Parts: sequence; C-alpha cells; structure tokens
Amino acid sequence: MRIGIAGITGRVGRLLIEEVLAAGATVAGGTTRTPEQAVGLPADIPLFKTMSELAEECDVVIDFTHADTVVNSAKSLVGTGVAWVLGTTGLSALQTKMLQEASGYVTVVHAANFSPGVTLVQRLAQMMASALPADSYDAEILEMHHRQKVDAPSGTALAIGQAVARGRGVVLADVRESGRDGLTGPRKPGAIGFAALRGGQIVGEHDVLFTSADEQITLSHRAFDRRIFATGAVRAALWTKGRDVGLYSMEDVLGLPPL
Amino acid sequence: MRIGIAGITGRVGRLLIEEVLAAGATVAGGTTRTPEQAVGLPADIPLFKTMSELAEECDVVIDFTHADTVVNSAKSLVGTGVAWVLGTTGLSALQTKMLQEASGYVTVVHAANFSPGVTLVQRLAQMMASALPADSYDAEILEMHHRQKVDAPSGTALAIGQAVARGRGVVLADVRESGRDGLTGPRKPGAIGFAALRGGQIVGEHDVLFTSADEQITLSHRAFDRRIFATGAVRAALWTKGRDVGLYSMEDVLGLPPL
Amino acid sequence: MRIGIAGITGRVGRLLIEEVLAAGATVAGGTTRTPEQAVGLPADIPLFKTMSELAEECDVVIDFTHADTVVNSAKSLVGTGVAWVLGTTGLSALQTKMLQEASGYVTVVHAANFSPGVTLVQRLAQMMASALPADSYDAEILEMHHRQKVDAPSGTALAIGQAVARGRGVVLADVRESGRDGLTGPRKPGAIGFAALRGGQIVGEHDVLFTSADEQITLSHRAFDRRIFATGAVRAALWTKGRDVGLYSMEDVLGLPPL
Amino acid sequence: MRIGIAGITGRVGRLLIEEVLAAGATVAGGTTRTPEQAVGLPADIPLFKTMSELAEECDVVIDFTHADTVVNSAKSLVGTGVAWVLGTTGLSALQTKMLQEASGYVTVVHAANFSPGVTLVQRLAQMMASALPADSYDAEILEMHHRQKVDAPSGTALAIGQAVARGRGVVLADVRESGRDGLTGPRKPGAIGFAALRGGQIVGEHDVLFTSADEQITLSHRAFDRRIFATGAVRAALWTKGRDVGLYSMEDVLGLPPL
Repeated sequence: MRIGIAGITGRVGRLLIEEVLAAGATVAGGTTRTPEQAVGLPADIPLFKTMSELAEECDVVIDFTHADTVVNSAKSLVGTGVAWVLGTTGLSALQTKMLQEASGYVTVVHAANFSPGVTLVQRLAQMMASALPADSYDAEILEMHHRQKVDAPSGTALAIGQAVARGRGVVLADVRESGRDGLTGPRKPGAIGFAALRGGQIVGEHDVLFTSADEQITLSHRAFDRRIFATGAVRAALWTKGRDVGLYSMEDVLGLPPL
Repeated sequence: MRIGIAGITGRVGRLLIEEVLAAGATVAGGTTRTPEQAVGLPADIPLFKTMSELAEECDVVIDFTHADTVVNSAKSLVGTGVAWVLGTTGLSALQTKMLQEASGYVTVVHAANFSPGVTLVQRLAQMMASALPADSYDAEILEMHHRQKVDAPSGTALAIGQAVARGRGVVLADVRESGRDGLTGPRKPGAIGFAALRGGQIVGEHDVLFTSADEQITLSHRAFDRRIFATGAVRAALWTKGRDVGLYSMEDVLGLPPL
Repeated sequence: MRIGIAGITGRVGRLLIEEVLAAGATVAGGTTRTPEQAVGLPADIPLFKTMSELAEECDVVIDFTHADTVVNSAKSLVGTGVAWVLGTTGLSALQTKMLQEASGYVTVVHAANFSPGVTLVQRLAQMMASALPADSYDAEILEMHHRQKVDAPSGTALAIGQAVARGRGVVLADVRESGRDGLTGPRKPGAIGFAALRGGQIVGEHDVLFTSADEQITLSHRAFDRRIFATGAVRAALWTKGRDVGLYSMEDVLGLPPL
Repeated sequence: MRIGIAGITGRVGRLLIEEVLAAGATVAGGTTRTPEQAVGLPADIPLFKTMSELAEECDVVIDFTHADTVVNSAKSLVGTGVAWVLGTTGLSALQTKMLQEASGYVTVVHAANFSPGVTLVQRLAQMMASALPADSYDAEILEMHHRQKVDAPSGTALAIGQAVARGRGVVLADVRESGRDGLTGPRKPGAIGFAALRGGQIVGEHDVLFTSADEQITLSHRAFDRRIFATGAVRAALWTKGRDVGLYSMEDVLGLPPL
C-alpha cells in the first residue's frame, strides 16, 4: 500500500514515516512547505508542494496539518480514488461542511485522537455508563500528567467525562464535580467527579471508576509514548483499502459495534 | 412488583429478601424444603412447598436453587405469565433443552453470574480483544482472591480469558499461558497470560490488561461483597416487567448492544 | 493475658471484645456508664462503674473513651502495674501533661490511629521523602472515600502529607497543592499535591506517589473494615506485656526503628 | 566535581555522560578499550587506556565495567584520594576480598542496582515485613516486564522477596510460592507469593502487597527508563564528596537509617 504523508518534514511527519515502514507499507511521498527542513529524511522519499501532486503517487494520504488546508485538500482528493486519513481538529463550520461533502466521493477517516486505546476507552466508558445506573454506581475520572501541564482536568479526561454523560443521558456541565478541596459536602447523586495528579514526565494516564457499595469497575489507559498517535493513523490508513467512500471514525477502524 | 424467591431460607435467599426490599419491591413469598430453617425471616412472608403455589402469588420468581429442579420449575411456570430469573448452573443437556423450550412461553433471564460488573467486564473484554490486534497488544489477566482459595486461575479469570479468545477468534486452550515460573522463554505471540495472587479475605479482584509498546488499556473489577449477586438478580427481576417471552441474558438486562 | 475494655458497651467496645477473643486473650471486664446497653454482650464479662475497679481485674486496659476521662484514668492506674492502651484524641494541654506524668509510673501506648497499616504508611512516607530529592521526585497523595464524606483531602491524607513534609524539612502549608481545577499553571517545584475521589462505600484508600522522569514509587493503603482499629489496639495491649513504664507510640508497637 | 567514567564508550557510559552533565558536574574523562567506538562522544572528553591515568584527572570514578577489572582498579585507586562508585556484580571471593581491603583506603560505593527507587523498595519491604506479622498479613510480589523476558519471577522480584524474608527471619526458599496454576490448595501460612505478567515493552514494574482481612498495604515501583541506573550512580558519585574512606551501599547514599 502506498501511503502519502502531508507535512512530512514536521515532528509528526517523521514519526509517521517510521510507523509506515514498521507496518511494511511504502512511503509514497510527502508534502512540505519547508523542503529545507527535510534534513535527515530517507533520501528516496519524493517531496511535493501540493496535495494534488502527492495524490497521484499514493493510495491514501495521512494528514495532520492545519484546519486551513482542509478545503484545498478536499478539492484535491475528490475524484482521485485516494483515501484521506485526517487528524486535523478545530475545523470551522465551512470546513466541516466541505469535509462532509467530500466524503460523498472520498473515503475519509477523521478523528481527534488516533490512539486506539483512548478511542476504545471513550466508547467503553459510554457503554459502562449506560449499563451501570447512576444512583448506584458513582463515576469518577482520575488523570495523571507530567509536571509541566498547566490545566486540569486534561482534555482527554473531559472527553471521557462527556462519554459517561452521554451514556447516562445527562449534560456533563450539569453534573461535573472537580477540584474537591475543603468542606465539599457529600458527593452529589449522579455527579461525575474529576481528580488530577501531576508529576514527573508522565505522558498521560486516565482512569474511569464506577463504584457501588458492592463492586468497582475501572477502565484505565496509560500512554507510554506519543508515537501511539502515528501508529493509530497508519492503522487507519491500512484500513481504508477497498473501503467504500464515506466519513468514518476511529471507532469504525477499530471495528467497534454501533451503540 | 411481587417477587417470589425459590429457596428462601438459604443464605442466598436471605440476601435476596434484603435486596428485594431495598429495591422497594414486595417479597411475595418463597419456597423451601426446610421450613424449620425459616427462623429469623420476616413473619409476614408466605412460605410454600412448590413452585406452582409460589407462582400464583407473584410476577417473577428468582431461583438460585439446583439444576435438578429446573425441569419441574419450567413446567410450573409455563402458562402462568410469571417471569423466571434463573441463576442455576451445571444444567444437563436435557435440562438445557427444557429451559429453551420453556422460554417460548416464559420470560426467562438465565445467567451464571448476576454481578453487573462481571457481566460488563466479560463483554467489554471481548470488544477490547476484537479492537486491539493480538500481535501488538499482549493480553494478560490478573486475579486476586482470599487465602483459602484452592485453585488458580479463578473461574471468572478463565471466563474473561474466554471472552478475550472469542474476541480474537482463537481457542483459549491453544494460547493460554499460566503459572509462569523459572525459565519460561519469551512470551508467545498471541498468548493470553494469567497470574494469581492470594491473600487476606479478598472477595475477588480481576484485571485484564492489553499492553502494547506505546499504551496499556486495563479493565478491572473488584467485588467488595458477595451481596452483589443478589443485587443483580433483583435488578434482572425488575427488568422482566412487560418484557416479551424469550431467553435473556444478564447482558440484555444491562442493555448492552449486540456484538 | 487479662484485658479490660473501657466503654465496653459502645460500638468500638463490642469490636474490641471480638478482637480480644480472636487473639486468644481474656476479656477481664469493662467499664460502662450505661449498663442497660449491655444487651447482647457475653454474659460472663464483669461490668464496672470505675476504672479503679476494672484495674483490679486486669493486666492492661484498652481505652477509646473521652478526653475528659483521661485525668481520672491516669490517677486510677498509677501504682497498679496495669498497662494503658489509649486511643483518645483531642487532649487538652493539662490532660497531655497528666498523661506524660502518668507514663513515669505506667506503661502507656497512646496513638491517634491504631491501624498498623496507616502507622506504617506514615513512617515509610517520611523515609521516602527523605531519600528521594524534592527537585526530582514529585510527591502526590491520592485518597478515595465513600460518597458521604464531606471534606477533602481526608485527615489521613493530610497526615501522610505532613509526614512527607517532615521528611523534606518543609512545612506542609507552604507547599500544599490541592483542588486542581482549570488553569493551574505548571506544578510548583517541591509541591505536595493532593487529589480526592469519592464513591460507593469505600472505607478509605490512600496512595502516596513519588514520580521522577525515570521511575515512580507508590505506597498504598486500603482499609477494608473499620475493625482494623480494634485489631491494632489489641495488638498494642499484648505488646505491653513485660514492657517498662513509659510513653509509647504505635510505631514502637510495630517495632519500627527510630528515624 | 570532576567525575571519571570507566568504559565511557559503551551504552551505559554514554548515559553516564549525559547524567553527569545534567547534574552540573564535569566529565573529567573516561577509559575505553575500544577508542574507535568513541564516535559521537563530546570531543573535549579525554580518553585513557588505564584507570591509573583516569584517576589523576578526577575526584571520583563511576565504574560499570567487568568483575575482572576490579582487582586492577582497586590497586589503581588506593592512595589517590579518588572515590569509586562501582556497579559491577558477580564478583568472585577474591575480588570481593580485594574490594573490602581497598575500602580501608578508598571511599567506595558498591551496589547491584543504583536505582534509588528499587533500593528504597527493598529496604521498606523489609521494614514492612518486620512490622506486619506473617500470620495476619499475606505477602505477595507481583512483577510485570516486556514480552522478551525469558525468566520469572524477575531478579528484582526475588530480591524484594528476600528482603521480606529477612524482615520475617525466614529463608525465602522455604516459603516461596510461585507459578500458581491448577489445584494449588489454600495459601500456606507464612508463604511469600510471586506472580508474573508479561507484555509490551514494560521496563519493569514491581509490587509487594501485604494483605490482611482488614487492610492492605502495597509498595510499588515502576521504572520508566533504564537511564535511572545512570542517574543513581551519578547521585552516588556526588555523595562521595568529603566522605570518609569505607565501603558504602546505595542505602547509605539515600540516607536510610540503619535497621
């Protein structure tokens, strides 16, 4: 399978090269706006200025560049038969609309987080929340990150919290309980609690706990290496082979059954 | 809702009484072969000798008695409109056939383990195993139980292992790796590993870990109290209300989507 | 060994009876101000109104009553050769002075928490904090308790935090970081962080984590049952046998080496 | 402080260079038998063929080379005032004797494992085992390592087990319980249990659990990076400054009180 990489000279692009090769696929080429930063890349990888040029050489493009390239990339890929693995977030309404239209003609996998583990944890957390009644099972989310992190709870912790809220048919903002300190009063029925630990160079650890009087079910995720995002994107790229056009998610790549 | 309890004077029967009342339902009566052991039961609970008599007083019967009562109970419940929550295991081929036939006329929930958490863990473990490729994610199952336990791995650990094997389309016996000690050689690709801890009066703890080079996803269950089996059975009983006839599982009670 | 129990008809008193018997020792009797509440106690246990009467019958008294009985108890025990295991907290300056004077004549074990595990965790946490430099190893304390708990962090979490601060030669109030929520900024060098989870009927779980870029050392305590406080007090009582007069701590009972 | 590195061109030697510089000290030079492998080393680091030459340039030497160099290194360092941080294991009786004699003239820190965390865990595990009676608290040791590991339990798990055995005054071989599988019978009183998990690229995780009916105390170590051994050795090197001659351990470096 011939895989193209948008933004190949960046940090993520380099990880993607390693992961494509590790998966036994071919790096068909990459786009870059800064070819002078290609130092250290394997010499036999063709570099292009545009997505259109790259598309001619590959079966699928992995794209972790910027929201403002989405419209142009969509136009470049329609009609080529090349699939599009897109990790860009923060799309505007217009960009989102263009992406949806393009998916009528292109096989697109779009995800905010390509880690199989995080994808799975969010899906499973929603199922757990549906199955375990909120009046018996208290849901809490714990995360730990490196000492440099400046906000709490982490974005992934909040995304897991939203999955729990969805599973319970509530709005997270209505039941969120975070930053417990001092005289908090008893836990509110139906609350979704958050707690944050900081230390060392922890890449990211998340636990979601459902605790009743009689049992506790915990789902945990530990990221050892940021490389996991590249690994997941390559997995998505391989998955597009022979797939119908349409807009897919990382849940689809993992083969998770619909809820 | 009027709930009947088969074998009401036993240890499980007494827990069931407490849990039915805690759920705000009515204990409509119970069967017992040893009415002299009814000491300490609430005086207003009618005792019966047969399932037929009990069925006349209730909407659903919870039955944790013996496999050899299954045929007779099935006959007693057909045509009564009373649902049957059955926790009996070790059914013979004949008993199983009779149960299936009865479920054409009776709403039956049959499960080996009514703990919502254990049910959920098995289902989710199978989904995790499907989603996380065996060549990248090593599956291991850890369990801890009280010091009196005489076998390892626990039955629940093996059931979780079977769920993982199902999710991967393999047979557990072919890939089981347990009792590591001494010169084991490297972990076999695709193995499902087991490890057992023993100590104190731990009711039961199970973890299933999926570990790749880059991330680890762990699903854990801790049982604090054996009461959880009674709690789950009462939940199943309440769930039968207005349900069509048929043979249901604890997965159905939890509302888990089909795989 | 003949063990007396002050306040024998209370909830703690009853647990103490069970634990004394479980340890193979003799319940020599108990004091009570409410003999009418002795219902259900073993009939052969003598009840007394005063510590002086009780002291005549036993080798050691376990006393979890009130601070305002300390002065009188001290007077009653001096000169009797009876040891005193005292779990009362909140002593006034005068009561504390009296206790110290009494320990010139009586073998006294005084502790705020007789759980061997909690005692050990505090001591070990202090040692860890001394051995692991604060600029490399970030110290965080996590606790989980039942949903009814109205304050955070728990008293035991704060006590562990104080042990860590002692080990580092700092004042906890100067470095405490709790209730992280929102834009917190990076972790402060040398901080001692706290986080609180709430759910179910968890008796009490505490973790202290020391995390550097390269390793993490965690010390965890889980209380399964409040009975542990009675178990520890009986252990202290047995330990007093043949011991010189003096004021001892639970650390001494556990045989922990001086810091 | 001027730190010399024996075997500077090896994998460990290179990590040591980084850690010395990270600690703000000076790499005074190194020995190597293969100067042609010095490619990539900072150009300003002097290379020597012998320990004697290196000793003239530094205050302390870190030495992770081979047991068969110990006798010669000892002779080279006596009388120089240079301290010796020695990580070599598998010393013969003669080499051990020579090391002890040398420590009458040289400040020596000798350890099998310079990780502060592992050192601490072994010491604390011994204290826990002394303080928590074996008939009430069941001791279990769990370890997890990468999928390539060919033996179980790990050497560090066994070392922790020996620390527990020392704390209890028993011999590990007499009470070891590992590889539980099948019909094991109940846990033997006083046993020290081991269990092994394998998966992914886990550097090394160890837990020692003490579990009674009422509480559980767990001490855990996770190594994120093999670099920790170099970090610890540099810490030991800095600690030798101004220290009397003698044979010291990593426990001394950490300032752990004697048992």
